[in-house]
Amino acid sequence: MTDGLFIAFEGGDGAGKSTQVALLRAAFEAAGRTVTVTRQPGGTPLGQQIRDMVLHGDHVSPRAEALLYAADKAQHADLFLRPALAAGDVVLTDRYTDSSVAYQGAGRDLGAQEIHDLNMWAVDQLVPDLTIVVDISAAEGRRRRGDVHDRLEAEGDAFHEAVRAHYLAMAQGNPQRYVVVDGTLAPDDIHAQVADRLRRMGVLP
Amino acid sequence: MTDGLFIAFEGGDGAGKSTQVALLRAAFEAAGRTVTVTRQPGGTPLGQQIRDMVLHGDHVSPRAEALLYAADKAQHADLFLRPALAAGDVVLTDRYTDSSVAYQGAGRDLGAQEIHDLNMWAVDQLVPDLTIVVDISAAEGRRRRGDVHDRLEAEGDAFHEAVRAHYLAMAQGNPQRYVVVDGTLAPDDIHAQVADRLRRMGVLP
Repeated sequence: MTDGLFIAFEGGDGAGKSTQVALLRAAFEAAGRTVTVTRQPGGTPLGQQIRDMVLHGDHVSPRAEALLYAADKAQHADLFLRPALAAGDVVLTDRYTDSSVAYQGAGRDLGAQEIHDLNMWAVDQLVPDLTIVVDISAAEGRRRRGDVHDRLEAEGDAFHEAVRAHYLAMAQGNPQRYVVVDGTLAPDDIHAQVADRLRRMGVLP
Repeated sequence: MTDGLFIAFEGGDGAGKSTQVALLRAAFEAAGRTVTVTRQPGGTPLGQQIRDMVLHGDHVSPRAEALLYAADKAQHADLFLRPALAAGDVVLTDRYTDSSVAYQGAGRDLGAQEIHDLNMWAVDQLVPDLTIVVDISAAEGRRRRGDVHDRLEAEGDAFHEAVRAHYLAMAQGNPQRYVVVDGTLAPDDIHAQVADRLRRMGVLP
């Protein structure tokens, strides 16, 4: 049995994460691996309910929001990620705990460290083997998103630049576990950088 | 303006908490105080959604359950309890954070200390001026509850005795902030003990 491999994609909305997830899925499948693709928030039925409550419901206090997203992550890790990894799958997730650290810790009233600790408790210390930060500026993200869809996307550039700064700081603080790619490059060029990193890790032929 | 006063009732289902809440409300109103009565989980619209998800929805993992209940408490504390206390109300709540510590910490896989810390973060350290534990045995609670209504009520006596032991341990550990009353006494006799304690605290004439 092959060891499971856990890879997270992070970055602002519009950065092109879902395209990269699709390209990487194809690369792993071409190499004969079973790939499970998921996302957060909303990767489980409970998570979808939580996502609806936070993004489209009544006002949610900052701590309640942080705890709801953490609950989604706990459910997702326990009922979805750990079983898939135990089965030897490659698991690709569109967002993971770093999204909470970046969005809630940066833009809201709560500290990034507190949000990090909360989320690590939620997932019981399940961290990705590699996190890929697809980096774009706030202005570029806004241009790509077009019409606003939910509460977080409606925030201003200063908020999204603070989110971006948190992602970059996390990546700089742990280069073994992160790779930052330039989201303004062509999708195939971004994918080539991602694949190169995974080859050097010895997990993609 | 009068100072707000925050009182929590804790104890197993069937212990008679809601009767005691009603009697204490009447006593404070007779003394000219404005009284706000609430409950947890489910004291806010968000909390009601959470309560439905946990008690009647799909399987929820232990950490996700703990985080969902904590989210309810965060929302309740921020949007309901703090404003009422700031307005000088007497706030009576049917269950508070100790319920989470007792039910999740005792009966489930998670440690009571972790659940305590999580809940204190959720409510940003808002603790009651007095917590009244209405104590009954697991067997008596089962007799009073009759038909089973939800997942927690359906647990066996060993679970409910573990919950009870946690309540009693919390009360013994902090006698300044807790009073334990015997839930098998007549409601008026229990109320007399509660009122006596509040008179000695100088908050009820």
